[in-house]
Amino acid sequence: MKKILTLLLLAALSTFGQSEDESQIKAIYDAALTKGKAYDWLNHLSNQIGGRLSGSVQAQQAVDFTKVQLDSLGLDRVWLQPVLVPKWVRGTPEYAFIETSPGLTNTVPICALGGSVATPPAGIKANVVEVKKIGQLAELGRSNIEGKIVFYNREMDPTLINTFQAYSGCVDQRYSGAAEAAKYGAIGVIVRSMNLRLDDYPHTGSMSYGELPVPERIPAAAISTNGADLLSATLKLNPGMKFYFKQNCKQLEDVESYNVVGEIKGSRFPDEIMVVGGHLDSWDLGDGAHDDGAGCVQSMDVLNLLRITGYRPQRTLRVVLFMNEENGMRGGNKYAAIAKSIKERHVFALESDAGGFSPRGFSFDCSSSNFDRILGWSKLFEPYGVHSFKKGGSGADIGPLKNDEIVLAGLRPDSQRYFDHHHAENDTFEHVNKRELQLGTAAMASLVYLFDKYGIVIE
Amino acid sequence: MKKILTLLLLAALSTFGQSEDESQIKAIYDAALTKGKAYDWLNHLSNQIGGRLSGSVQAQQAVDFTKVQLDSLGLDRVWLQPVLVPKWVRGTPEYAFIETSPGLTNTVPICALGGSVATPPAGIKANVVEVKKIGQLAELGRSNIEGKIVFYNREMDPTLINTFQAYSGCVDQRYSGAAEAAKYGAIGVIVRSMNLRLDDYPHTGSMSYGELPVPERIPAAAISTNGADLLSATLKLNPGMKFYFKQNCKQLEDVESYNVVGEIKGSRFPDEIMVVGGHLDSWDLGDGAHDDGAGCVQSMDVLNLLRITGYRPQRTLRVVLFMNEENGMRGGNKYAAIAKSIKERHVFALESDAGGFSPRGFSFDCSSSNFDRILGWSKLFEPYGVHSFKKGGSGADIGPLKNDEIVLAGLRPDSQRYFDHHHAENDTFEHVNKRELQLGTAAMASLVYLFDKYGIVIE
Repeated sequence: MKKILTLLLLAALSTFGQSEDESQIKAIYDAALTKGKAYDWLNHLSNQIGGRLSGSVQAQQAVDFTKVQLDSLGLDRVWLQPVLVPKWVRGTPEYAFIETSPGLTNTVPICALGGSVATPPAGIKANVVEVKKIGQLAELGRSNIEGKIVFYNREMDPTLINTFQAYSGCVDQRYSGAAEAAKYGAIGVIVRSMNLRLDDYPHTGSMSYGELPVPERIPAAAISTNGADLLSATLKLNPGMKFYFKQNCKQLEDVESYNVVGEIKGSRFPDEIMVVGGHLDSWDLGDGAHDDGAGCVQSMDVLNLLRITGYRPQRTLRVVLFMNEENGMRGGNKYAAIAKSIKERHVFALESDAGGFSPRGFSFDCSSSNFDRILGWSKLFEPYGVHSFKKGGSGADIGPLKNDEIVLAGLRPDSQRYFDHHHAENDTFEHVNKRELQLGTAAMASLVYLFDKYGIVIE
Repeated sequence: MKKILTLLLLAALSTFGQSEDESQIKAIYDAALTKGKAYDWLNHLSNQIGGRLSGSVQAQQAVDFTKVQLDSLGLDRVWLQPVLVPKWVRGTPEYAFIETSPGLTNTVPICALGGSVATPPAGIKANVVEVKKIGQLAELGRSNIEGKIVFYNREMDPTLINTFQAYSGCVDQRYSGAAEAAKYGAIGVIVRSMNLRLDDYPHTGSMSYGELPVPERIPAAAISTNGADLLSATLKLNPGMKFYFKQNCKQLEDVESYNVVGEIKGSRFPDEIMVVGGHLDSWDLGDGAHDDGAGCVQSMDVLNLLRITGYRPQRTLRVVLFMNEENGMRGGNKYAAIAKSIKERHVFALESDAGGFSPRGFSFDCSSSNFDRILGWSKLFEPYGVHSFKKGGSGADIGPLKNDEIVLAGLRPDSQRYFDHHHAENDTFEHVNKRELQLGTAAMASLVYLFDKYGIVIE
């Protein structure tokens, strides 16, 4: 038997309700496409602030900027939620070359992976062993790996239509490659960038040494896809070639940072909390425009658009700009821990963290009853082409809020171009299309509106 | 009662048939994403040849290049179909400024509309009257228009999700604006570019003087959206301001050009012809990468992909690269006229002319019985996100093939970015994403495969 959180369901299912929903959603889209603030905010975040790695000056500037902007929206409450974050710094630009014979070198573009240790000050130079999978290390054994640089070169699978699947199929190389290679005596790791395109941008991203003791940790860097192809081809021609790289990145002490939170108190059900959010931190190489400046400004704009269209939420609606998704998840964990400790009841959370591209739909992590109900709303999204509703996955930052009741959701934009820019120097404002960004915001605001109006299904 | 063109329908509806279709479509997608030639061909068309206005050297180079490429695919027959095309030339770059008072000027970016006459060699300078609609000319009357430049400034409606609808709602200004304004004594016309974005690119496009006698024709140019906003704002502050522009474009004698045609003869039903195509000509300002280099290379690649996947069509499959879609439609008309004169039976035609963006589905111009059948195929396209099938519209070049029997179709990519580049200097290769282009090709090849296998429904 199901209890519906609100009494409005019958009205909703009536023709009148349906047409009211259509009108409200149309009003949201019109407002997003003509009065949305997301694009201008993103311009500032990208071009006036730039990359916002946790603990950086830019991350703090982003906290300050978004708080001021939320303050200007006339919300009921805006606050900063302190959270201790890791501080990893890249240091001076990395440098690498392929040496086919002494003095004969080709420089290649690399960047340290986030969390990596530095090389010794003079860099390291060694023979290279190429593998496609971590599992190959065991086959090769210590005798073939010790003293060498392991080069992980598995490509993202271009035949997967959803590029996030292709990413998932490769990212273990980046995340665990160094820890695994170190066990066999490797002295460094080079990883092919998680990029479906051939170009010259190395793509950073988080890595972990797991339980590996500090003295055994080896430096890890990403190489651009063109660089990876060159390295692989050179290695085939000349297995005795050497690879040199140098990086002086460093893990510093944790520092205090913040989640930025803005809230409209619910008019009827203030204790039912809905969250819409993205993560405010980004990698340092680009400007974090798609990842995840886009998700932050869209989330902020959701509250702005509801206000513009005169919609007063009956449930409490919060925008949360999470800190430290990229290399620690401290913000998402802290937000959920506080919510739990003060017994807040979250009924719905929506994250946008897949880029500011043309939206195609949403993914949901929720009960079947809720998903069935959501499917019933898809007709409302059809005129906007955002009606691909799928089960599975939401967003990293809202994941810690999961319980038996809550509906978690993620905006799902077209994924084709995302990994051209992901964690790389070219994740910049000019690669975000204004209308595509706005349409994502409108889709998010429409979904929030429906959850606010109809609540969630309780089993 | 319906007769099905092939005997294979029952097999098709069986589970076995369904799974065979799924496999073939998967094979097509895999081939498109790993072995497709479209992107490399487009690189050549855009960067080695460039803008291909009818009658230009570049248009001829494009004919030569694509014929050589089709020859290399081992088709059954490749040929050039002669067609006489108009030759309009832009001449030296246009020049324009806003003059708020004598000597105080702001230059603004303009370009002559395709088909426009030149200004006098010294240019024209006159007061400006701004209108939003052609209908306002009658309200203003000759006394307010005579001797002035009419400035059409209706914006594309940003709230329309399908940007082609927004284009349709504005393009009368560009196409008929000069002919209409001339009737009231205007001496020139400036039209706001058909662009949803604010930027500095003027967008050209075709215009017509209709039946207007040659001596009465007045020059017409497009102004960038930023330029249009500046002109409008200046005019409000200073209604006495003058606008100057100069262009020396010219209509020359018609010249001979070609449609490029490649054919795989049908193994079972050679007299049933299927066409897949785009238009080879483009405007001259950019490189015609999206419009319609993308459609041409995708169409060529459809035949390549079927070959790679070992699929031998039972119906005759032609790729047709039409000449002169932009300013005359001579190629499309000629192809249809020849087909009619030699009594060829065309059963299916598919055009790609909406840019090389991420595909969302197809539009169809066909009988209800055929459309119902096509809807039954949409499940096959769902895994690829290309299952938005709509009635209405196909492509300009294949339109002349229309009869009671044929199914006409158009690829429908995401339309959000199209008008950022349409007919402008920035319609260039780097704005085409390789995967998005490839996914369009794969969708087209899959649809061609299904029509080849199952034929069309005859009422």
